[in-house]
Amino acid sequence: MGINQKMMGLGKKRSVIREIFEYGNKRKAQIGADKVFDFSLGNPSVPAPDCVNQTIKELIQSESSLALHGYTSAQGDAGVRRSIADYVSKTHGVEVSADNLYMTVGAAASLTVSLNAIAEPGDEFICFTPFFPEYRVFVEAAGGSLVSVPSRTSDFQLDLEALEKAVTENTKGVIVNSPNNPSGVVLTEESIAGLCSVLKRKSAEFGAPIYLISDEPYRELVYGDVKVPYLLNYYDNTLVCYSFSKSLSIPGERIGYILVSPTAENSADLYAAVCGAGRALGFVCAPSLFQKVAGRCVGQTADVSIYKKNRDLLLSALESYGYRCIKPDGAFYLFVESLEKDAYAFCEKAKEFELLLVPADDFGCPGFVRISYCVTTEQIQNALPAFEALAKAYKN
Amino acid sequence: MGINQKMMGLGKKRSVIREIFEYGNKRKAQIGADKVFDFSLGNPSVPAPDCVNQTIKELIQSESSLALHGYTSAQGDAGVRRSIADYVSKTHGVEVSADNLYMTVGAAASLTVSLNAIAEPGDEFICFTPFFPEYRVFVEAAGGSLVSVPSRTSDFQLDLEALEKAVTENTKGVIVNSPNNPSGVVLTEESIAGLCSVLKRKSAEFGAPIYLISDEPYRELVYGDVKVPYLLNYYDNTLVCYSFSKSLSIPGERIGYILVSPTAENSADLYAAVCGAGRALGFVCAPSLFQKVAGRCVGQTADVSIYKKNRDLLLSALESYGYRCIKPDGAFYLFVESLEKDAYAFCEKAKEFELLLVPADDFGCPGFVRISYCVTTEQIQNALPAFEALAKAYKN
Repeated sequence: MGINQKMMGLGKKRSVIREIFEYGNKRKAQIGADKVFDFSLGNPSVPAPDCVNQTIKELIQSESSLALHGYTSAQGDAGVRRSIADYVSKTHGVEVSADNLYMTVGAAASLTVSLNAIAEPGDEFICFTPFFPEYRVFVEAAGGSLVSVPSRTSDFQLDLEALEKAVTENTKGVIVNSPNNPSGVVLTEESIAGLCSVLKRKSAEFGAPIYLISDEPYRELVYGDVKVPYLLNYYDNTLVCYSFSKSLSIPGERIGYILVSPTAENSADLYAAVCGAGRALGFVCAPSLFQKVAGRCVGQTADVSIYKKNRDLLLSALESYGYRCIKPDGAFYLFVESLEKDAYAFCEKAKEFELLLVPADDFGCPGFVRISYCVTTEQIQNALPAFEALAKAYKN
Repeated sequence: MGINQKMMGLGKKRSVIREIFEYGNKRKAQIGADKVFDFSLGNPSVPAPDCVNQTIKELIQSESSLALHGYTSAQGDAGVRRSIADYVSKTHGVEVSADNLYMTVGAAASLTVSLNAIAEPGDEFICFTPFFPEYRVFVEAAGGSLVSVPSRTSDFQLDLEALEKAVTENTKGVIVNSPNNPSGVVLTEESIAGLCSVLKRKSAEFGAPIYLISDEPYRELVYGDVKVPYLLNYYDNTLVCYSFSKSLSIPGERIGYILVSPTAENSADLYAAVCGAGRALGFVCAPSLFQKVAGRCVGQTADVSIYKKNRDLLLSALESYGYRCIKPDGAFYLFVESLEKDAYAFCEKAKEFELLLVPADDFGCPGFVRISYCVTTEQIQNALPAFEALAKAYKN
């Protein structure tokens, strides 16, 4: 009796990322903020597009307090959902309606609500390495267990043979995240088509749907003319978990949605289960003002060209120093092979050069580190000599 | 395999309140909005105080986009928590700090996070009738079971003998809600002291803490000089679940907090479990802008005098027509004894007079109805002849 020990453990255990970030703050106090090159946090560094604050101002002027700050329906304001459904339909060539959308308190909530809507005891959920460590927390809290499937470390596309072996009759769902945190990799159409082919075959074999859960907060953060395949066009039993945190640079405001594919098996029942899970977890409705902001600003983004500039600068410099980098086509992370086997030791070594990097062990990829380039371009420029010196330290 | 059936059921089953509200909308379309007297929803009818929109405007002017809309720490912005802790300490004569506060996405989230922080399989949670029906959903989703203890139907204060019998070694917590939804009753100091005395004795007997969970979104909505005892002054193992939805009339914005008593057994561990549960359920952090609004507007309220005026008007009129009413000292609900045994049948009869009332069966109190007086005073005035006619219909 007493406290739930598992929850206490989750509350006490700081993530590695948070540990490094806290170390960085201390170190900055010691030697000056401009001398420490903190690449630990995945926190947008580009301001929200003007439409965000502009919309807030307009809504405050035009809407009554009760309409603006009052409850919306549990699934979200109908006008907002229509606006997002129209945008998604037009942009991705699908036919979805407001009734397929459920507004959420951001990507994490999109995932926990989706998982709780479908998970039953004994269910397994497959994730491909590298993956965001909170997936394990969310899957286990929903009563499922996480099955980790390694990606190809050459290019971090999916390893379909490994997937084939991992799918069992207990597999309830597969989580994909493209563009990926922490690798920045965008899954190719070939990877997606292969994945969907395996899942369709296995669903038929086991006589039960396997759900594809697409966690895509970084969808709009892609560079050049790279395409991010839209999963509804490839697979029926899909739940899209979206967040405006990164596209609109409003991660603190907690606004996103779940899109339940209209072509999913028993789609209306699945949608009802999403509503039920949101209710049981205590969400009531997504924040009203920011629902309306999302509805009006959908399709706009923060200035992505800054992230692209950062990527290009960092990638070409690090490759010239001899690092093996996975070229990121999206998100704001660069995945780099550690210069020694133990990525923790490598990150400790990097600290000697005031470089704060995150070992990817917790993402399921020992031997790699994540470098978050959602920082000022100036910080990257100033850090380059340190990256070069770090590489040299391993050549001696 | 497939969807989680329990969640689907929760998503499909509309609450009785929502059914009546939807009927009201249809009926209004038929005969005109001013002819239908809808008393079904507990939705604030008084605008937010000026400080809310004023603060939003000021923050947009003064804060950078990244600071205003960025992530806060998981437990909430430190300055906001300090401001609320100072207010609570001063107002209620307790000593709490920012480190005892965890910002949430409203009252429902305060409850689900608190319950998940402490619940383990087999745990029982006691609620006193009448209680908000979602308590059962939240308790069961956290893996516990709900034990319903009847209140005294004379005045809806606590029945301590019934409580005594209901507490077992499986009792993990007791949920109290004062001012109460749906009765409007404020628990007296006598009720609170008696409750705490039973729980202290039983905790000692069973050698394990029994937590008191105080759900108090209506704390500031009280009339006259009624005092709402602050539970931290009576009981150590207390979690206060607060929401700004009603006090600031911003129910759609989803902002509240959990206060973990600093004098609770292993208070730091309990607080960690709250953080862990928030993480596992997918909350990340409470909405950033409205955290800051809450921090600056704490202690202010929407114009409560309008609710008082409504209460006085409705209560005196209904009593003069012969209804037995429970005098509400707070919230915006009037609890009235049904004029026939079956409150559902009574509410059907009321519909003939275009009165939309909620039978209290789902609140655990058959034979009573809830009348939400968070409506315009004009609606109440216009509805009085209908209430009188309804009473007369039962005298013939």
